[in-house]
Amino acid sequence: MSISLGPGAEFDRIRAIAATLGARARGLGDDCALVELGAGTVALSVDASVDGVHFRRDWLAPREIGWRAAAGALSDLAAAGASARGVLVAITLPRDDPAELPAELMAGVGAVADSVGAAVWGGDLTAGPVLSLAVTVVGEASRPLRRGGASPGDRLWVSGTLGGARAALLAWLDGRDPDPGARARFARPEPRTGLGQWAAAAGATAAIDLSDGLAGDAGHLAAASGVRLVVELDRLPVGPGVAREAASAGEPPPTLAARGGEDYELLFTLPAEVEPTGAPVPLTAIGRVERGEGVRLVLEGTDVTLQSFDHFR
Amino acid sequence: MSISLGPGAEFDRIRAIAATLGARARGLGDDCALVELGAGTVALSVDASVDGVHFRRDWLAPREIGWRAAAGALSDLAAAGASARGVLVAITLPRDDPAELPAELMAGVGAVADSVGAAVWGGDLTAGPVLSLAVTVVGEASRPLRRGGASPGDRLWVSGTLGGARAALLAWLDGRDPDPGARARFARPEPRTGLGQWAAAAGATAAIDLSDGLAGDAGHLAAASGVRLVVELDRLPVGPGVAREAASAGEPPPTLAARGGEDYELLFTLPAEVEPTGAPVPLTAIGRVERGEGVRLVLEGTDVTLQSFDHFR
Repeated sequence: MSISLGPGAEFDRIRAIAATLGARARGLGDDCALVELGAGTVALSVDASVDGVHFRRDWLAPREIGWRAAAGALSDLAAAGASARGVLVAITLPRDDPAELPAELMAGVGAVADSVGAAVWGGDLTAGPVLSLAVTVVGEASRPLRRGGASPGDRLWVSGTLGGARAALLAWLDGRDPDPGARARFARPEPRTGLGQWAAAAGATAAIDLSDGLAGDAGHLAAASGVRLVVELDRLPVGPGVAREAASAGEPPPTLAARGGEDYELLFTLPAEVEPTGAPVPLTAIGRVERGEGVRLVLEGTDVTLQSFDHFR
Repeated sequence: MSISLGPGAEFDRIRAIAATLGARARGLGDDCALVELGAGTVALSVDASVDGVHFRRDWLAPREIGWRAAAGALSDLAAAGASARGVLVAITLPRDDPAELPAELMAGVGAVADSVGAAVWGGDLTAGPVLSLAVTVVGEASRPLRRGGASPGDRLWVSGTLGGARAALLAWLDGRDPDPGARARFARPEPRTGLGQWAAAAGATAAIDLSDGLAGDAGHLAAASGVRLVVELDRLPVGPGVAREAASAGEPPPTLAARGGEDYELLFTLPAEVEPTGAPVPLTAIGRVERGEGVRLVLEGTDVTLQSFDHFR
């Protein structure tokens, strides 16, 4: 099989998996697997959250850890333009953790699932050296969105605001309490389920959710679509707490926002003639699709280079 | 919601999760979630395998770790009488592990999936302090089997042989090389997908896969069905390497086999008048269903008590 991802050590490993599996693997390299099951197209995705990697237990309450882990997976369904029907959760936790911890984690999972109309379908509970949650999500897509499909001339749109989750993270890593708005973006991100379905109906040509940061995720959309994306960083809708963290880091707020992952907003392309009226979340036009490859990030008229998150770099 | 599981600290935590989620949780406490999706009933399950808990890396090759992790999840589909259509795998692994490890793990996942007609639909790859795989499996069930449904008078059947995986584990824990047959039972268990579909068509009234050991898993089937199971341990089909390990532990081979989990054989009930002809795996009648509750284990005419595996005890 062929697989189109942007550069990075994590994605090198995924390419090697695809090469090993050959025809047995289908649909790797999109946000969701999209399979014909029963009478319709079913969308599935899985995302793991690991203590010390994706969150720290002194930053978040157990309900927030559960919410955030499930929101990240539900965001993949949103990017596919799918509904959210159900979630399954494998929890691994140390034997000496409080006996009520799994139920508290699952209260958060249940709350975010409920917020987008999904049920908790099942799970697995096992002992292990570190707390982690692997969340599988299942939905239905009558008109699935994929990363591939953007065409030269399309406009590039992003939902909500960017960088809030990263602003919270930077404050915590620096030993400070984050801005409350930034903390909420990290602790309780909202899956853009309604927006994804709206974008699919509006004729979006490609979509991805921003889990690793705009800089890297835009690269995946560009690679899958075989196009170049031009992003005007000055147009980025900057999230809560970003200005303060940018000032303290000595970088422009838009580059901090563009490097920030885990806001779980959607990045998608629409034909230039489509005006996004009636979207359930505020949208911002941040660039365009051109012939070529890769992502060109422009700040105040100058090209800039940014690194995004890679687990294996 | 109500949930019926046998006793144990792990199952206390699952009961607390079900109580917290209330109506948002459906189908917890069976091997699979069974949901109406598209036109049919879809079966889903998730299982985590953690280094140092479910396997050790000096015992198994990476392909075997992948095979075994996926086989355990596919076994849940088999217990539901479902086909196996696809798997999704969330892999967490240390940053300094060899870059080729994920592809080797997934080669094993792909091989066992292929052996039962399933494809690899997707996954997630993340860094973390310990290697773990959370495998989600999806299938279709036209006539789903559940743990509840056994009636007094039914006969109790088990597939294949029991205790081989435990015999391998005991040898490794004692610093010895396991019997090759026992090792194969641990490293490459075969999901009983065909048997589960055969049992559903043959009129099985209840089924469960033996992942925690007959002693405990029979308790779940009894609780879900609201019956008592009587198991004649002398009839148990004892697996490879069990006699030797039992001799060295000074216990009868059938009790070692009954305490052994992770052979991934199926335990199911059939009406007394049904003779299991044409099953794709050898079957053994090991007991009967009575009015009452719990599990009565009988060895040479005497009741015995055994503990099965519990992650949180």
